Amino acid sequence: MSYILTTECKDDIGLIAKITSLCHEHDLNITRNNEFVDKEGQRFFMRTELTGTPSDNFLAQLRQSLPTGAKLNLYGQERTKVVLLATKEAHCLGGVLLKQYEQAFNIEVQAVIANYDTLEPLVKGFGIPFHLVSHEGLSRAEHDSAMADLIEQYDPDIVGLAKYMRILTPEFVSRFDGKIINIHHSFLPAFIGAKPYHQAFERGVKIIGATAHFVNDELDEGPIIAQNVTQVSHAQNAEEMAKIGRDIEKTVFCNALQLACEHKLFINGNKTVVFS
Amino acid sequence: MSYILTTECKDDIGLIAKITSLCHEHDLNITRNNEFVDKEGQRFFMRTELTGTPSDNFLAQLRQSLPTGAKLNLYGQERTKVVLLATKEAHCLGGVLLKQYEQAFNIEVQAVIANYDTLEPLVKGFGIPFHLVSHEGLSRAEHDSAMADLIEQYDPDIVGLAKYMRILTPEFVSRFDGKIINIHHSFLPAFIGAKPYHQAFERGVKIIGATAHFVNDELDEGPIIAQNVTQVSHAQNAEEMAKIGRDIEKTVFCNALQLACEHKLFINGNKTVVFS
Amino acid sequence: MSYILTTECKDDIGLIAKITSLCHEHDLNITRNNEFVDKEGQRFFMRTELTGTPSDNFLAQLRQSLPTGAKLNLYGQERTKVVLLATKEAHCLGGVLLKQYEQAFNIEVQAVIANYDTLEPLVKGFGIPFHLVSHEGLSRAEHDSAMADLIEQYDPDIVGLAKYMRILTPEFVSRFDGKIINIHHSFLPAFIGAKPYHQAFERGVKIIGATAHFVNDELDEGPIIAQNVTQVSHAQNAEEMAKIGRDIEKTVFCNALQLACEHKLFINGNKTVVFS
Amino acid sequence: MSYILTTECKDDIGLIAKITSLCHEHDLNITRNNEFVDKEGQRFFMRTELTGTPSDNFLAQLRQSLPTGAKLNLYGQERTKVVLLATKEAHCLGGVLLKQYEQAFNIEVQAVIANYDTLEPLVKGFGIPFHLVSHEGLSRAEHDSAMADLIEQYDPDIVGLAKYMRILTPEFVSRFDGKIINIHHSFLPAFIGAKPYHQAFERGVKIIGATAHFVNDELDEGPIIAQNVTQVSHAQNAEEMAKIGRDIEKTVFCNALQLACEHKLFINGNKTVVFS
Repeated sequence: MSYILTTECKDDIGLIAKITSLCHEHDLNITRNNEFVDKEGQRFFMRTELTGTPSDNFLAQLRQSLPTGAKLNLYGQERTKVVLLATKEAHCLGGVLLKQYEQAFNIEVQAVIANYDTLEPLVKGFGIPFHLVSHEGLSRAEHDSAMADLIEQYDPDIVGLAKYMRILTPEFVSRFDGKIINIHHSFLPAFIGAKPYHQAFERGVKIIGATAHFVNDELDEGPIIAQNVTQVSHAQNAEEMAKIGRDIEKTVFCNALQLACEHKLFINGNKTVVFS
Repeated sequence: MSYILTTECKDDIGLIAKITSLCHEHDLNITRNNEFVDKEGQRFFMRTELTGTPSDNFLAQLRQSLPTGAKLNLYGQERTKVVLLATKEAHCLGGVLLKQYEQAFNIEVQAVIANYDTLEPLVKGFGIPFHLVSHEGLSRAEHDSAMADLIEQYDPDIVGLAKYMRILTPEFVSRFDGKIINIHHSFLPAFIGAKPYHQAFERGVKIIGATAHFVNDELDEGPIIAQNVTQVSHAQNAEEMAKIGRDIEKTVFCNALQLACEHKLFINGNKTVVFS
Repeated sequence: MSYILTTECKDDIGLIAKITSLCHEHDLNITRNNEFVDKEGQRFFMRTELTGTPSDNFLAQLRQSLPTGAKLNLYGQERTKVVLLATKEAHCLGGVLLKQYEQAFNIEVQAVIANYDTLEPLVKGFGIPFHLVSHEGLSRAEHDSAMADLIEQYDPDIVGLAKYMRILTPEFVSRFDGKIINIHHSFLPAFIGAKPYHQAFERGVKIIGATAHFVNDELDEGPIIAQNVTQVSHAQNAEEMAKIGRDIEKTVFCNALQLACEHKLFINGNKTVVFS
Repeated sequence: MSYILTTECKDDIGLIAKITSLCHEHDLNITRNNEFVDKEGQRFFMRTELTGTPSDNFLAQLRQSLPTGAKLNLYGQERTKVVLLATKEAHCLGGVLLKQYEQAFNIEVQAVIANYDTLEPLVKGFGIPFHLVSHEGLSRAEHDSAMADLIEQYDPDIVGLAKYMRILTPEFVSRFDGKIINIHHSFLPAFIGAKPYHQAFERGVKIIGATAHFVNDELDEGPIIAQNVTQVSHAQNAEEMAKIGRDIEKTVFCNALQLACEHKLFINGNKTVVFS
């Protein structure tokens, strides 16, 4: 059997030796290992691929040998549970659903929740539950609360904003702290906020891009997970840039979810650690 | 109204002036123009985006002013008709169906025909007709003939091989001459033939890629339309390369179909002219 | 003989037909053509590669057939004259000097002027005149004036700021209006101003980049010519990002000068038109 | 003080634990670690960045704890010694010399040896010794022997073939076994042998590339170190592809030497392990 062990704790000397020695003692063979020390923040991050059979007390023993407050996880083959939020645009949502269908990554999209019914046929075509939670007649707080209640029934590992075009309340964000992944249609921090392709066109840039990031309380300011760009020219107007950009958005959003599913993604303050 | 005029003929002096002057005389305004002269082959290729209303005799007049045998096409807003062939793999097929759903390009996938029923749910989920033409119990010639008969009922502009894993007979190829687009899972001419990712792994390459090409009678030797690659490392085995490669295959295959739908693609002997 | 004709004027119908027809009348064969219409700004841009021998009145006739105020240039094989300004960093300067040495583009670096003598050995090693104009003891206006006087003696087509780390006075900029190309070490408009790699590190971005742009009176706000990026990760600190970024800066700066040398570069308000 | 430890040996269980524990016992702090197990070949590779002061018996103790025949190296800050061979083309050679001048990597180019004197001014401009060893009047064996004798006087870590356009004898190769890095101007294994850009043009490919590889006795068949590509189109002829390709060659060759200087490069049979 193969496992993935993730370790996150205050930095200390000899951590790699301690962890790998304990694995060795427990007959767990390390097939791949990544680690990173944030020297400024004094944080240690490690992701270890193992083969073998962890005994019941492996994690407990490991925890004892590490600094207090270490975050340890041991993942088997279970799929990462994801609820996707959407509005009307199909590309990011469809990109993930297709990837799941292809079995390209180890994901279980539990449900799609949207504030319009536009995408219902697409979602149902893939055999995934679709919920409409219209925002009409509701305050932002009421709508977010209704969405959050529904999401919580699924208890997902990740809430993916697949071009969900509404700003979330701090209450919503705090209910899924560290679990919400958004796709923003610019290479942040350029073009924060609305209509980034129009901003890009006005500025006359030669590259456009997209950014997947965790959501916190500041708009487009959460920890960046993945970014990618493509070349454009004077010949594209804002609409054409948007069309070209959708491919990048789809790729970057799928990439971020894949990293989450492979347990390669750690939040480190306002940044991420990504073992790719 | 906007139109796309494509011109292909023997090269001559003054062709651009002749074509653009005639457009001007007919009150057709050129909004974008690309042209290429193959000096070796003495061939002229041009793609012209026009606004206005072409009179009935525009094409006839244009033909008179060009060398004998010129190929002229004037396209309006009609969608390019495509029949897709598949076997069991979802990624290239699903990539195109999703792009059509997103209205990312001006395509009409008329039907999907496969030799297994694996992909039927995916295709029907998108509301596209699916036909199973099993090869079991049929000779290659018989199976190809059955496929071709079915395809011809749709009279498509393009036959797209979305990871159709069978080698086509020359008879099949000749029935859709210049219309068949295949995706090969290597950056041709490297790794022609079967199991290119295994070949790539054995050779220890640091990039893998995919190639979309027109099909002619020689395996993997037709005119190349589009190629793309991605970096790999010693850490990926052949299966992991294949998994990474599927994203490139999907991208390149969609790219090739998009070029066809936008009338940016010309065959020039064993090469292509692509106005991207 | 081969020539490059560049045309820039107010947009009008039939411009391509007029220009190409006149070329045809003068026995000038068009081997390559690019054009662009800025519909918002109502400007027409065209670059035409010609073979033949333009008669003395070709340009005059052409001008008569075009809207008033058209900018016309006919370039033969002459090299584009460039004066480079530098401070202490070698990579962008050396990149251009090496490209000239390789004859990779049609450039004549007339001289290098710097406010330190650090790079003198590099410049002299390539056999190029080097001038030290120290800023010590001079006001910014005095120093800029001394630099400008020296540059003007060379009468360059382009003034390239090869990591010249001083902000130029409006007086300097106006003396070389539309001729000054700068390299900025971020993908603008992200990270305007000082220490962009430190800003990038603090923000935790996953891509860093560089931007070549024309200089106008607003810092880092001139028309963008070329941009490129590269992937980084959590593992790079600001200094390592800066090191990685220098390769991108070198590439982008060389690219921008190459476009200028090939007459593929037009200024269009606060943007550029680039026929690449 | 910081060090780099490289370990290569037969695979065994617990190797990471053994090595990192011994580092910990010797008060060597691991700041970065990469490892790879080739399961087919049963080989273990590891690169460890350390801070601290290794005691005299550290390596001896480490060797005792590892399988017989382990290759261990402990590198301090010393520069990697490189002799470059060239013919007439400046770009790869100049690229490395400029990178050394910029202090972009930790290299000491000891000398350049060429069979023509074309590049002497470039090399001397950078203050590097240049030796002409003309092949005229010599058999291939005689010329290679003269070259090898001269190279051996420098005792380099790496012999870099910076577009050295002669095929080396097996005798030459065996004298610098595992130390010779070549740049080939195609994305191998496509277009092995002479005139790859002409081959690429004839085939009508849409990407061209370059490959840095270790040299063994079979032409263009040695372990691949690094590859990169760029997009081309129908509009480039073979000469233009070659011009575009030179930038890729320069980048890839510099990249390969940088990996060697940073001790990130291992030979594993007919492949490489690259910790990038």
